[in-house]
Amino acid sequence: MKFEAHINIMPHKALLDPQGKAVTGSMKNIGLPNVHDVRIGKHITMELEAANEQEASSMVEQACTKLLANLIMESFEFTIKQV
Amino acid sequence: MKFEAHINIMPHKALLDPQGKAVTGSMKNIGLPNVHDVRIGKHITMELEAANEQEASSMVEQACTKLLANLIMESFEFTIKQV
Repeated sequence: MKFEAHINIMPHKALLDPQGKAVTGSMKNIGLPNVHDVRIGKHITMELEAANEQEASSMVEQACTKLLANLIMESFEFTIKQV
Repeated sequence: MKFEAHINIMPHKALLDPQGKAVTGSMKNIGLPNVHDVRIGKHITMELEAANEQEASSMVEQACTKLLANLIMESFEFTIKQV
């Protein structure tokens, strides 16, 4: 079966996100002073073949922990849907 | 009212995504040969104050088009919820 995974990887809430902070500062310059607390992470999509949704979920979890996310600084969440 | 926005910015489907291609290649090395077509974009969260959901939505759209997304190479989508 074919699945599509959507993964969000974000810096931990407790950590400073310098890129997000810079963007928050820039919001004033484009006329949006009411925007706060911008945080920037990664959005990753992938296609995978697996026997069932459970296997697909375990594959995505492996991909995140072994390769995509740095668990010291980032946390991840994902959704899977069959295509 | 306070809103929270979740924005996904992805490279256009028609464009080559070199970062995603490199990650797709690495999947084999971590024992996941059945993962294909990895595409990597940005996930951005922000908090904003607006009079209503429509105003919030227009603010997020402005932020995306003026600052966050490069519309030549990327497309964006977002969701907004009141907090």
